[in-house]
Amino acid sequence: MNMVPVVAVNYKAYPTAFGEKGLAIAMSADKVAREYSGSVKVIIAVPATELSRIAEVVEDAIVYAEHVDPIEPGAHTGFIPMEALKALDVRGTLVNHSEHQLKLSEIDFIIRRATAMGIETMVCADTATAAAAVAALSPTWVAVEPPELIGTGIPVSRAKPEIIMNTVKLVHRVNPELPVLAGAGITRGEDVEAAIRLGAVGVLVASAVMKAPDPEARIRELVEAAYRATH
Amino acid sequence: MNMVPVVAVNYKAYPTAFGEKGLAIAMSADKVAREYSGSVKVIIAVPATELSRIAEVVEDAIVYAEHVDPIEPGAHTGFIPMEALKALDVRGTLVNHSEHQLKLSEIDFIIRRATAMGIETMVCADTATAAAAVAALSPTWVAVEPPELIGTGIPVSRAKPEIIMNTVKLVHRVNPELPVLAGAGITRGEDVEAAIRLGAVGVLVASAVMKAPDPEARIRELVEAAYRATH
Amino acid sequence: MNMVPVVAVNYKAYPTAFGEKGLAIAMSADKVAREYSGSVKVIIAVPATELSRIAEVVEDAIVYAEHVDPIEPGAHTGFIPMEALKALDVRGTLVNHSEHQLKLSEIDFIIRRATAMGIETMVCADTATAAAAVAALSPTWVAVEPPELIGTGIPVSRAKPEIIMNTVKLVHRVNPELPVLAGAGITRGEDVEAAIRLGAVGVLVASAVMKAPDPEARIRELVEAAYRATH
Amino acid sequence: MNMVPVVAVNYKAYPTAFGEKGLAIAMSADKVAREYSGSVKVIIAVPATELSRIAEVVEDAIVYAEHVDPIEPGAHTGFIPMEALKALDVRGTLVNHSEHQLKLSEIDFIIRRATAMGIETMVCADTATAAAAVAALSPTWVAVEPPELIGTGIPVSRAKPEIIMNTVKLVHRVNPELPVLAGAGITRGEDVEAAIRLGAVGVLVASAVMKAPDPEARIRELVEAAYRATH
Repeated sequence: MNMVPVVAVNYKAYPTAFGEKGLAIAMSADKVAREYSGSVKVIIAVPATELSRIAEVVEDAIVYAEHVDPIEPGAHTGFIPMEALKALDVRGTLVNHSEHQLKLSEIDFIIRRATAMGIETMVCADTATAAAAVAALSPTWVAVEPPELIGTGIPVSRAKPEIIMNTVKLVHRVNPELPVLAGAGITRGEDVEAAIRLGAVGVLVASAVMKAPDPEARIRELVEAAYRATH
Repeated sequence: MNMVPVVAVNYKAYPTAFGEKGLAIAMSADKVAREYSGSVKVIIAVPATELSRIAEVVEDAIVYAEHVDPIEPGAHTGFIPMEALKALDVRGTLVNHSEHQLKLSEIDFIIRRATAMGIETMVCADTATAAAAVAALSPTWVAVEPPELIGTGIPVSRAKPEIIMNTVKLVHRVNPELPVLAGAGITRGEDVEAAIRLGAVGVLVASAVMKAPDPEARIRELVEAAYRATH
Repeated sequence: MNMVPVVAVNYKAYPTAFGEKGLAIAMSADKVAREYSGSVKVIIAVPATELSRIAEVVEDAIVYAEHVDPIEPGAHTGFIPMEALKALDVRGTLVNHSEHQLKLSEIDFIIRRATAMGIETMVCADTATAAAAVAALSPTWVAVEPPELIGTGIPVSRAKPEIIMNTVKLVHRVNPELPVLAGAGITRGEDVEAAIRLGAVGVLVASAVMKAPDPEARIRELVEAAYRATH
Repeated sequence: MNMVPVVAVNYKAYPTAFGEKGLAIAMSADKVAREYSGSVKVIIAVPATELSRIAEVVEDAIVYAEHVDPIEPGAHTGFIPMEALKALDVRGTLVNHSEHQLKLSEIDFIIRRATAMGIETMVCADTATAAAAVAALSPTWVAVEPPELIGTGIPVSRAKPEIIMNTVKLVHRVNPELPVLAGAGITRGEDVEAAIRLGAVGVLVASAVMKAPDPEARIRELVEAAYRATH
């Protein structure tokens, strides 16, 4: 796989996701992204309320939303259309995270509309077959995350390597060009290397960074491993 | 296509779906199914509350549920696990109808569990790409229904024939053996013939039968057309 | 409180809720209801797929649905309107069980429509304040169930007696005539007596009966206690 | 009623809600709020993605979120806990808008948690009885909006004045101090005056401002009417 590898950090709604702490992690991610510019992509998916502050200061990391709603602009109180992301120059969005699952038709709608508007979509799936289903909808990325491992610190790449391999196989049967990320329990550099060796283009992490004593060191460890695995 | 063609009737929650009227339509469907036994499959999808009475008397038509919940038996008040269908010898279930859409992971779970238990799944999709996504999950059937035509009496086979053709093409690219039904606005025999000529194995109808002055005559018209289109 | 006390059994989707087992428990409930006719009401809330078989044979117990959908008859695939209950002579329904929670406007709609159609509503609430909110909507009964005790076998009447008392107080401030049931962990006759002494008109149970080695003996124990507490 | 009257503007997801347009409307609301400081409260409820930019510049208008999720901080991808509002010094939030309805237990949870954190809640209800139910949960405000009039420009105060009067009556029976707002179709100053004469403390508007050729003039018209009706 000669694509640029990816480390994506999902802020979720962890206490460190908001305010000064969330901003500091964004600055750290940006710094590491600058160091590995052109070699590893660093994506941060941040809460809707933090998007504008973070998008304004981050230059080398790529800012995503954690979610976007399957709507067009209009009378939809408390929902976020893709235009809201466009207004902030946000590059993309997570879709269908295991903690925020969507109906099939909503995923279809979001991918179709985002693609038309130039917004990237990283669509999550719980299983290899669900990831293959997502592949038929042609998102930018698909990320497979066995929900039972999310937040455990037990890396999918070690506990269930066959899920990554099987996902890559089934996804590429439907959509040969679609890059696959692996997530759930990914914590250390070695987990990133393992995931990439199993066929993933990168990883999706959350608690590994958001709960780290030193988030910048942790991001650097993950990004450095992604670099090493591909060079 | 040398599969036996299918006419599937979705009772929905129309006033005629319940009590004596619902039972009479089931008897009519059963009678027509008997006449075309071996040549055309007649499926009726009926409300959960009518399943036991209808399943008890119907012999040649195939009885489906309109929905099943993505759960295992247990503490789930007011939800219907697949075991509830098994207890009534119900053969299969609609899944993800446009009026009762499910999350991708729920569709994945239901198909996986139903297949393991020998229950058929007819999974609906709004678009050709969503149908291709469903195909990756290997249901028994996939039914494409553009929601804007449902209940209109404007048949998808005439208003949007390209959706049927495109669905068949995209679905078979993912899963070459998966039979595709077409639905939305299908009302007369000619609509059934058109759908089958476009590559569908049959049709999914609702108001055409449930609101017909003579439901039996309407079922016979649709089934007869399915027979004609394949012989 | 000189109302007739109530023991309500929620079948949920336990393995014993379906087929012959579910029917046998209904017959047991009916038998006990006959023994205490006029002195204690026995309500059984059963799965939608079992309603017709059970409603047909039960005479003295009162049959409820576990859920009804907030819809009018029409194009609503896989949803159950109140008319479906009417068609089976079902007397009432649970609403908003902790495992099947509804939007406020849906509860409002269901109570309004059920009342107009002569269908009883037993509306569940998680907290005393939520029960008071329900009281403003004038259901037939309100049942308070702290979700953290549901299915534990630790009776609310012993673990959190203040919730029952507080619910009765807040509910009666809004709606002085509304009978309050208590649920969650209620298992033995003494729990029923305690709940009634705390101001409840009766109890809502599930696993205590559905998982009992001898469901009939368990129902009789609960009903006998309700009788004793009020005579 | 000698409370300070309120004009609340819900941005929804209208095209004017985002970016420079949304900011300009906030500045206009702030300007009018300054002119009527101490006499009329001006609240603006804005999209999550715009909260930080708007909260930073607005001084006299009161900034609310359009929605907050019923969660505590943690692993909840794409959801917004109350802490996210606190981090931006946002004063309050709409809850349960007709376009974003919540389960009863979620409304209960949100009001309880917001109150504990010093965040105001303006909880919407579709009917007078639902508003009375909300009153039992003790929010900061309750807003009644018959959904069939929302966005029509036909003011509830003229089309259904009895809904406002009835809501005020039922709400105050449960919670005598709770201020009631009226919404749906409110467009002109005379609608505000009518609503206040009917017992409301103010109005909740959206399209009247968000689609106005001159939003500032429209806000001033509404606020001026609220002032007139109470002085």
